[in-house]
Amino acid sequence: MSQTQLFERVALIGLGHIGSSLGHAIRRAGLAGEIVGAARTQETVDAALRLGFIDRGGLDAVAAARDADLVVICAPVGSIAALGQQIAPHLRPGTILTDVGSTKGSVVRDLLPVLPAGVHLVPGHPVAGTEHSGPESGFASLFENRWCILTPPTGTDPAATEKLAALWRAVGSNVEIMDAEHHDRVLAITSHVPHLIAYAIVGTAIDLEQATEQEVIKFSAGGFRDFTRIAASNPTMWRDIFLNNREAVLEIVQRLSEDLAALQRAIRWGQGDVLFEQFTRARDVRRGVIDARQA
Amino acid sequence: MSQTQLFERVALIGLGHIGSSLGHAIRRAGLAGEIVGAARTQETVDAALRLGFIDRGGLDAVAAARDADLVVICAPVGSIAALGQQIAPHLRPGTILTDVGSTKGSVVRDLLPVLPAGVHLVPGHPVAGTEHSGPESGFASLFENRWCILTPPTGTDPAATEKLAALWRAVGSNVEIMDAEHHDRVLAITSHVPHLIAYAIVGTAIDLEQATEQEVIKFSAGGFRDFTRIAASNPTMWRDIFLNNREAVLEIVQRLSEDLAALQRAIRWGQGDVLFEQFTRARDVRRGVIDARQA
Repeated sequence: MSQTQLFERVALIGLGHIGSSLGHAIRRAGLAGEIVGAARTQETVDAALRLGFIDRGGLDAVAAARDADLVVICAPVGSIAALGQQIAPHLRPGTILTDVGSTKGSVVRDLLPVLPAGVHLVPGHPVAGTEHSGPESGFASLFENRWCILTPPTGTDPAATEKLAALWRAVGSNVEIMDAEHHDRVLAITSHVPHLIAYAIVGTAIDLEQATEQEVIKFSAGGFRDFTRIAASNPTMWRDIFLNNREAVLEIVQRLSEDLAALQRAIRWGQGDVLFEQFTRARDVRRGVIDARQA
Repeated sequence: MSQTQLFERVALIGLGHIGSSLGHAIRRAGLAGEIVGAARTQETVDAALRLGFIDRGGLDAVAAARDADLVVICAPVGSIAALGQQIAPHLRPGTILTDVGSTKGSVVRDLLPVLPAGVHLVPGHPVAGTEHSGPESGFASLFENRWCILTPPTGTDPAATEKLAALWRAVGSNVEIMDAEHHDRVLAITSHVPHLIAYAIVGTAIDLEQATEQEVIKFSAGGFRDFTRIAASNPTMWRDIFLNNREAVLEIVQRLSEDLAALQRAIRWGQGDVLFEQFTRARDVRRGVIDARQA
């Protein structure tokens, strides 16, 4: 066992953007004796083997997870429940089961009841990623200087949480621990609703009869292009996120609609001072993002 | 007169982000015999002289514009009318008067009536810029591979439009000519409404009691940070844009609200297929942006 090795065998269930990045990062840092992978298609498994971020793999998630001491489900949020329920009965005591999904309440709700004795559930969420998908899109430095949030349910063995935290720190992340419900509310505003808005505005643009799609694309440098980048994210992943963080997302969209209505009203009535004050407030938040080196 | 020189004397009225970038770009390409600048504060004039993108300058816009054969108003949209009305009577026949504002209907409405005989009004809008402000933030390559839209009113001398187009092409831009009303509708969707939404969502985040501002900033890498970047743009400039493109902005915000309501409804009722279809459509637009090299 090398000095940096934390786990004997890590199983990555799902080998897309996050799974491949995590595989590369674990390998680079020498954190696992062996990395085993499972994916839905042989094409993805072959790509993972070719890219070298798993040692072996196949289509059977149970086979990959068996005898691993860390199992990371790297699948869209909507598949985590089924995969976890399929894998859980075959895990040996002492194993840590985690995931990288963007909603955490759903993971606790779906997996805690099916967990065998001695297996530790420590749901996780690396707040990182690009708009790209698939095993070819991963890279080892994706998690550097990003936050990884862990949401162990009440009663989780602190040693299991700490061991998983050590892995995330070793791939370059800062780790924050909070409860799943709080995670889902914070992420609704910092990630989920921004994506929903980006999807909405791109849809609005496509349907406009006053401007052709070609014109919209041509002149997108004025702000729209940033929304198209966000809206290029994986549709399956985002469908699942919204369906699994329904309450928090709907509550924040409702607030946003009210705030937007107030700005609309200020524009309609020519209240320049209201607009100026709101815009100035927003500028300060950007300074905070830059200071926190998340820009 | 050098081979590339297009104008004997260019006057830049306003020396902020766009004014300074244009000054640097005109100088680099050798397009003007002399660049004269005017700004609201001596501090800005001094910075412009120090940075070397004007040859001389001061606080008097009329003095700067007098005897120029190209006058470019590089001020926030809300100041263009007053500046233009102040300068116009002092322009000599043959001079081209233009601007770089993000709304164009307002410029035609405010300046065409005060134009002396023989002076050519060719409003312009370089679809370029960063979230930064001030004379120090400009750079010569800002306009490269970006679009510049010119909106000459009906009856404008085509030679004047062509001469200004030649200047924009010489600083690296592609030029498109359209009427001011159409410009304002297209830009409402590609620039103005995206900014309004970004301002709104940052405001919503600040006011949330479920998450502290520090948490919002910390976990902003999930999408929110892109909105904070857009919302960091100059508050005065954006206030003026919304007040001067009221109808088009309000119409598109209304449509966006409807589209957002449809997505909210799909989330509430668990209609994953509706979400998936919308998100997939949005992804194709991103491909268009990348293909058009505006990403």
